[in-house]
Amino acid sequence: MTKQSYLDIAKEKRAARDSKFIKEWLLKADQLPGTGVKDVLNWPVSSGFLSAKEIEITESDFPTLAKHIKSKTWTAYDVTSAFCHRASIAHQLVNCLSEVFFEEGLARAKELDDIYARTGELVGAFHGIPISLKDNLNVKGQATTIGFVGFSFNPVEFEEDSCLVSMLRDMGAVFSFKTNVPVAMMMPDSINHIYGETVSPFNRDLSSGGSSGGECALGALLGRIYCGIGSDIGGSLRIPAALQNLFTLRPSSGRFPTLGSRSGLPGLESVASVNGPISTTLSNLELYCKTLVNEGKPWLHDPKCLEIPWRDTELPEKLVFGVLKDDGVVKPYPAISRAIDTTIASLKKAGHEVIEWEPLNHERLTAIVGEFFLSDGGKHCKEYAGLTGEPFFEYMKMYETAKNMGVAELWDLQVERTKLCKEYLERWNSTAYQTSSGRAIDAIIMPVSPYSGVEVGKFCYIGYTAVFNALDWSAGVIPVTRADKAVDVQDKSYTPRNVKDQATYDSFEAEKINGGAAAVQIVCKKLQEEKCVAIMKVVAKLLGTDTYWNKSL
Amino acid sequence: MTKQSYLDIAKEKRAARDSKFIKEWLLKADQLPGTGVKDVLNWPVSSGFLSAKEIEITESDFPTLAKHIKSKTWTAYDVTSAFCHRASIAHQLVNCLSEVFFEEGLARAKELDDIYARTGELVGAFHGIPISLKDNLNVKGQATTIGFVGFSFNPVEFEEDSCLVSMLRDMGAVFSFKTNVPVAMMMPDSINHIYGETVSPFNRDLSSGGSSGGECALGALLGRIYCGIGSDIGGSLRIPAALQNLFTLRPSSGRFPTLGSRSGLPGLESVASVNGPISTTLSNLELYCKTLVNEGKPWLHDPKCLEIPWRDTELPEKLVFGVLKDDGVVKPYPAISRAIDTTIASLKKAGHEVIEWEPLNHERLTAIVGEFFLSDGGKHCKEYAGLTGEPFFEYMKMYETAKNMGVAELWDLQVERTKLCKEYLERWNSTAYQTSSGRAIDAIIMPVSPYSGVEVGKFCYIGYTAVFNALDWSAGVIPVTRADKAVDVQDKSYTPRNVKDQATYDSFEAEKINGGAAAVQIVCKKLQEEKCVAIMKVVAKLLGTDTYWNKSL
Repeated sequence: MTKQSYLDIAKEKRAARDSKFIKEWLLKADQLPGTGVKDVLNWPVSSGFLSAKEIEITESDFPTLAKHIKSKTWTAYDVTSAFCHRASIAHQLVNCLSEVFFEEGLARAKELDDIYARTGELVGAFHGIPISLKDNLNVKGQATTIGFVGFSFNPVEFEEDSCLVSMLRDMGAVFSFKTNVPVAMMMPDSINHIYGETVSPFNRDLSSGGSSGGECALGALLGRIYCGIGSDIGGSLRIPAALQNLFTLRPSSGRFPTLGSRSGLPGLESVASVNGPISTTLSNLELYCKTLVNEGKPWLHDPKCLEIPWRDTELPEKLVFGVLKDDGVVKPYPAISRAIDTTIASLKKAGHEVIEWEPLNHERLTAIVGEFFLSDGGKHCKEYAGLTGEPFFEYMKMYETAKNMGVAELWDLQVERTKLCKEYLERWNSTAYQTSSGRAIDAIIMPVSPYSGVEVGKFCYIGYTAVFNALDWSAGVIPVTRADKAVDVQDKSYTPRNVKDQATYDSFEAEKINGGAAAVQIVCKKLQEEKCVAIMKVVAKLLGTDTYWNKSL
Repeated sequence: MTKQSYLDIAKEKRAARDSKFIKEWLLKADQLPGTGVKDVLNWPVSSGFLSAKEIEITESDFPTLAKHIKSKTWTAYDVTSAFCHRASIAHQLVNCLSEVFFEEGLARAKELDDIYARTGELVGAFHGIPISLKDNLNVKGQATTIGFVGFSFNPVEFEEDSCLVSMLRDMGAVFSFKTNVPVAMMMPDSINHIYGETVSPFNRDLSSGGSSGGECALGALLGRIYCGIGSDIGGSLRIPAALQNLFTLRPSSGRFPTLGSRSGLPGLESVASVNGPISTTLSNLELYCKTLVNEGKPWLHDPKCLEIPWRDTELPEKLVFGVLKDDGVVKPYPAISRAIDTTIASLKKAGHEVIEWEPLNHERLTAIVGEFFLSDGGKHCKEYAGLTGEPFFEYMKMYETAKNMGVAELWDLQVERTKLCKEYLERWNSTAYQTSSGRAIDAIIMPVSPYSGVEVGKFCYIGYTAVFNALDWSAGVIPVTRADKAVDVQDKSYTPRNVKDQATYDSFEAEKINGGAAAVQIVCKKLQEEKCVAIMKVVAKLLGTDTYWNKSL
């Protein structure tokens, strides 16, 4: 018996996935836009392959869906079917789905309809609402590869849902597929040896980002129905959300359940992997958070969750923002700088106070997060890759050569991290001396990454996000604008400050990244998720991007 | 230049401490009770060395002190002076103080009086209130040895308060001394090469326990004025509190600030060291918690603190308890079993529901906590002991031989711990199917340790407490009764189940431990500190031990 090569196993896995699509929804090559068509954002709606009803459903947000399901205008089956059909089209445009189980989703939707018809009662707050899942969440009856070929059929099917999936399912949510990720979810491009690469629907020459790239590429094509769950340990929610101009929230650890997810770095606690919603609407995002926490009570199910309800927030009428334009390590692309400037102008015009946020310890905190990632000497990732002998991508070569750190050294690193976090907190407190209100800032406005679009393999700096993983603070992303080659031109007089800054500077090609997304990050302190979402709403409304994904139907 | 031996340094340090006592308060050997006098609980009051006013002050709880300071019946100086005088007597009975800085405390009290006289304003909620500190908290201008000879003069003086100390100081609290601990705070007896051993005032042949043994031996002699801060990573608040029948609360991590404390295991995060109040009254304990959290807002100062206010709790009229009499690993001494039985009877009589709590994973979770302690291979402890070459005590020999664990192995251990914690949580949830109310239990009632008094060197099992460090749950201790050799007789037919059970069984000598304290532990889930304190109040009131430390004056 010869051992199957990783390529053979990957091929087999792809075929297994492909067999799960619904034939009538698969388009022929000549029905799809050619590779020359970069921007496919409007294609699912404009192509004519979705019915008017399917478009209406998929352009409805959660509250609207819930209303129609309750009133029986739409069945859960209608909703799931429209959702899966549109996802199927999206997949054919950007290669975003990994596990596909439309049939199971449709069967569950039918079951929910039957229950509702029979009992007159909805199963829960998410009755019939489709929620997309990143491929680190286990779904009973499905595999979870997290991009490792060796996990393609290992196990063939999980016997239990992840804690979060189980909770959402109990509240009536419907799951029909999972989305593509980078190997181990530890690269900023969503690429692996099983499914290849997920590209951005803003510009298909560009990366969807990572690690929640499958989610975000999908989400940008799915309409206002879209809400998916991604995860974030160094920027994995925020980076792809920003590269696709979606809304997301990276919560502090303990707000949402993470128990029973698959990870490339299982047991790592020095920096916590968290999960959070990604959506085309703030209404979906907020409803998700509030319902999950207040009705789901995650602390009853996940021992790491904190018994804190989703609290009502009252914001001061005039907010105070710290703005960070450049962290002093890697200078953002012009469109990102423009997005920040646009945001500042909107805030000031509305009478909010804006002061400068001077970054502190960003480079070292980012480096420490990287050391935590590698602290097991890559043992777990090597073991998983070793199941089939698949090679590491360039981004992950360091996992091959890393050294298993001693716990004594880890403790010292944790001491250093805590010291830097204290300094960061003190700097925040000290802004009270700079503001006209005498209050410390309410939030930081800053880039999510240097990139307003980036080709696969060129993303080289996670410092704008990873610092808040080290701090474990709440951070949201909202859309602002798109890169425009006519406006966003590079400052030719700039002298890069270091290797990563140089690489980022050199990778900028206005023509190539044209049309890329440019979002901003809104950062609040630890456990201030409610406040963060409330501020995201205020800022998006001022920018006019709260309706960024609204289509006139 | 010859290097000083650790004995010489320790001697020098002791002399330095002893020079800080106020001469007039030091008693001659023949004024003190002889070593034959075991129980010295009443000695500070009955001996005649305290004035009536000093007794009245030290027998007042925080609300009473605050009232008298505000009305100027007493000055902060009066209060601090009485507190220090009584502590000085206590020290001469049980050897409980490590750093002594009465002068600084008295000077600060004077300063507070001056401020109040001048401005008419109190500095804060703790204006003039004396709070005792375990010797892991740094106080500006003082050393912190945590029992290592090498830290006797290293640094000679800390330049900054620990975060908690700084917060309390800002609220007006007065600090005049710190209390003795075991080396590295990692032994269940408060003994070290600098100060020797702190004994129990219940029976001076017995250990005060550890690691907050200095606090608890002191506290039991200090009257209702007493509230001290101890810490707990495996039972270090609860074990000595129970061995001295004091009230304490081990909070979940993130409620109270720990930043800037000294530790023998710095950077350990797999199991969190927390601190909490120990007191002779529940009024002090509750006021401390509420004020520290709601006025101090620890999350503004310690990056690990959670932004959760101290919340009002409303308990159901009829509570549901799970009772654990024996964890199946080490059988408690008879007086502990009697304390549990007495508690159950009181609860049932009052109409509360009591079901059996079947322990789950206690042995393994306790073992994992032990592995976390040793996971740096004892590197830090060895380094600190190595500063002077002081030998390890028997209890800590394992730190000499431990192996620096690899982080990969640590991750696996953390995965296992989380899995066991999930099972524990599920068991808690499942009690809903056992109770007549259909609600899960509100709290567990159980022993704190097997011992109702124990000689130094014989405490060998921390499983009754450490499991809740692994879980990071809230757990309180309340007094019940004292060991009585006439009643608490050993079951001679019992066959011990393992080595530790055997050692515990063999160490029981009714005569020797006569008069020892017998408390119970009340356990609530993570972040349920408010509920835990509310339940402690209910149970102590039913037992009549809410007034355990009241003296009729």
